[in-house]
Amino acid sequence: MHSPIITLLTDFGITDAFVGIMKGVILGINPEVHLVDLAHGIPPQQVVPAALLLRSAVGFFPPGTIHVAVVDPGVGSERQPLVIETERGILVGPDNGVLWPAAVAMHGAVARRVENLDLCRRPISQTFHGRDIFAPVAAHLSRGVDPDTVGPITSSVVEMSIPATHCVGSVIHGEIIYVDHFGNLVTNVAAEAVACFPAPEVSVSIGHKLVAGLATAYVAVPVGAPLALVGSWGVVEIAVRNGSAARMFAAGPGTPVTVVVERRDA
Amino acid sequence: MHSPIITLLTDFGITDAFVGIMKGVILGINPEVHLVDLAHGIPPQQVVPAALLLRSAVGFFPPGTIHVAVVDPGVGSERQPLVIETERGILVGPDNGVLWPAAVAMHGAVARRVENLDLCRRPISQTFHGRDIFAPVAAHLSRGVDPDTVGPITSSVVEMSIPATHCVGSVIHGEIIYVDHFGNLVTNVAAEAVACFPAPEVSVSIGHKLVAGLATAYVAVPVGAPLALVGSWGVVEIAVRNGSAARMFAAGPGTPVTVVVERRDA
Amino acid sequence: MHSPIITLLTDFGITDAFVGIMKGVILGINPEVHLVDLAHGIPPQQVVPAALLLRSAVGFFPPGTIHVAVVDPGVGSERQPLVIETERGILVGPDNGVLWPAAVAMHGAVARRVENLDLCRRPISQTFHGRDIFAPVAAHLSRGVDPDTVGPITSSVVEMSIPATHCVGSVIHGEIIYVDHFGNLVTNVAAEAVACFPAPEVSVSIGHKLVAGLATAYVAVPVGAPLALVGSWGVVEIAVRNGSAARMFAAGPGTPVTVVVERRDA
Repeated sequence: MHSPIITLLTDFGITDAFVGIMKGVILGINPEVHLVDLAHGIPPQQVVPAALLLRSAVGFFPPGTIHVAVVDPGVGSERQPLVIETERGILVGPDNGVLWPAAVAMHGAVARRVENLDLCRRPISQTFHGRDIFAPVAAHLSRGVDPDTVGPITSSVVEMSIPATHCVGSVIHGEIIYVDHFGNLVTNVAAEAVACFPAPEVSVSIGHKLVAGLATAYVAVPVGAPLALVGSWGVVEIAVRNGSAARMFAAGPGTPVTVVVERRDA
Repeated sequence: MHSPIITLLTDFGITDAFVGIMKGVILGINPEVHLVDLAHGIPPQQVVPAALLLRSAVGFFPPGTIHVAVVDPGVGSERQPLVIETERGILVGPDNGVLWPAAVAMHGAVARRVENLDLCRRPISQTFHGRDIFAPVAAHLSRGVDPDTVGPITSSVVEMSIPATHCVGSVIHGEIIYVDHFGNLVTNVAAEAVACFPAPEVSVSIGHKLVAGLATAYVAVPVGAPLALVGSWGVVEIAVRNGSAARMFAAGPGTPVTVVVERRDA
Repeated sequence: MHSPIITLLTDFGITDAFVGIMKGVILGINPEVHLVDLAHGIPPQQVVPAALLLRSAVGFFPPGTIHVAVVDPGVGSERQPLVIETERGILVGPDNGVLWPAAVAMHGAVARRVENLDLCRRPISQTFHGRDIFAPVAAHLSRGVDPDTVGPITSSVVEMSIPATHCVGSVIHGEIIYVDHFGNLVTNVAAEAVACFPAPEVSVSIGHKLVAGLATAYVAVPVGAPLALVGSWGVVEIAVRNGSAARMFAAGPGTPVTVVVERRDA
């Protein structure tokens, strides 16, 4: 039997010991778990980028992985603590939408409200449920505790939808949903929307500014030039080779993006 | 028998390979150890915040955990390398106070000066005792080497006390001792000092500026408003809901804080 | 049989999930591997500092360790994916020189071009070979897959040499090759070049500015004063005690450094 995996995604940063404390709590319950940091640099209280990151990552972990996400501006309020079972693994975190896009992507989601205090650290603080609820619950689940025992199924779960694209004729109106470490602009335009067209027939604009046709790799353009491509998130991305598209285009989450498909066989 | 745990706390940052090198040295001695990063973003050579972080974390790790702390402005001087046994686990690091508050919190501390060179990497550099002394000593201890063998008991150990609060009548004069990643201001006023009073009877000021009465959770105030509460460190903290108290109050370590208890039953 | 070790060195930063995704891919293939982060804060696309960091670290890991380095501005181009076997372990990454200094230091390097798609994740993207090639290949190697099976030996490998020093009489002309987290200036002047001289006979200058004679430890000078010493990289380093030499001397990679050996027995 292999060591179970627990991943951790938080907005706790890495200058304090908050993440280390969660690991200490987990290892005290299950010393044989494999801990993986997904990311801890989510901007404080920003649920949307955390949800996007989580969704982007869950498909690359083995079945049965337990993912804990703690971006939790509502800690201490009535927001529910959740455990969501899916076909691919288990999600643990606050009910504010952070788990939702990943849950949808992992299929077959059943959400439970954590009510079983025997699985929590006590007393439960009103400021650090990562330590007192989510870490210990995940640790117990990793030991094989049945998710049925954490609490009742709940159907009133906060959903979060990635903004949808709108198509008008051969024009796809989308937006930037995430900016990565390299300054690459991740859009909500799915690979499938452009996949069936030859790359030269697709052009991508930010606002009214033409970026480029669709390339297949960063190296398709000279160093410092912009390009659009289907990147590692499986969506259209705008990048600058060896540079930052966020800086070049002064763009970020919410900036409109237009993808135009033009037949060039005139 | 479970994998032993070694935690690492340093001011090495994460852009160089210093922490990775310590892990390589440890795994070369004990390949079955579980390594946990506590934090590596301590400001360079700042022993006090490192000591506070370490103390805040040790209680959440299982008994027997070995904690290595390397914030070591005196490396290469006569300062002693220490191993401190306690009732809850073992501390390893330089004798500059960084281990002291944790050692006190873990009870029953017995400090030894590391003298057994067989437990060290040789030659021992004068610039990187994390690699040459603390990592290998911790690794050997994690394999069950008796702490008695590292060197003689030493009683001349550098202590570090958290600044004490002063009470004048119903007024507690304290100070800020740490600012966390979120900009929360951690004070030296213990939860016990305010725990027996109803929250509305307690008011907290920074300098002469009233912050708020004592709340029980961040969500007790509107977004952007300040509050005081007993936070996850077990002391009075000053926070701004979804914001930074350090920025709002332009406050940091050493800033005076006043906690006033007023009976409001007039 | 001990858990094999895979180290990861990237320019992916820690705000996205790229590193976590690589770990998910690895654990899906070999759940019993020990993952160690070497560093993920390499400036984007900067191959030289990554190569220097990797070389500085490999000697401290146990034999057989697999090191994965992904700083890969040429991803999606014709640059080869490499596996380099050495006497001390295995290197995996792009053929752009990032592996080269470490390969030389680890002796007996034999480089193979990765061609066996059965060891890769498919489809292979043109933007994230860390996830699709280097992580899975390393994971398979960690399970004991014979490096012979990854692909044919290649002799046309991109080399990267650390800039050489030039000696004119008793003067060594070198340069700064790396600036660490503390602002210490790492030069290309090997310890051996100065080791046989008494420290007071060696003086170090940046450009035309005398730094100091050679010290043996940071504590040899007052707080805030500059010094030169053989540091933990095994080369001459310029530092400021409890401060930043990079800031004091406004120096960085490429800045000329002069080491003068003067007999003082006149």
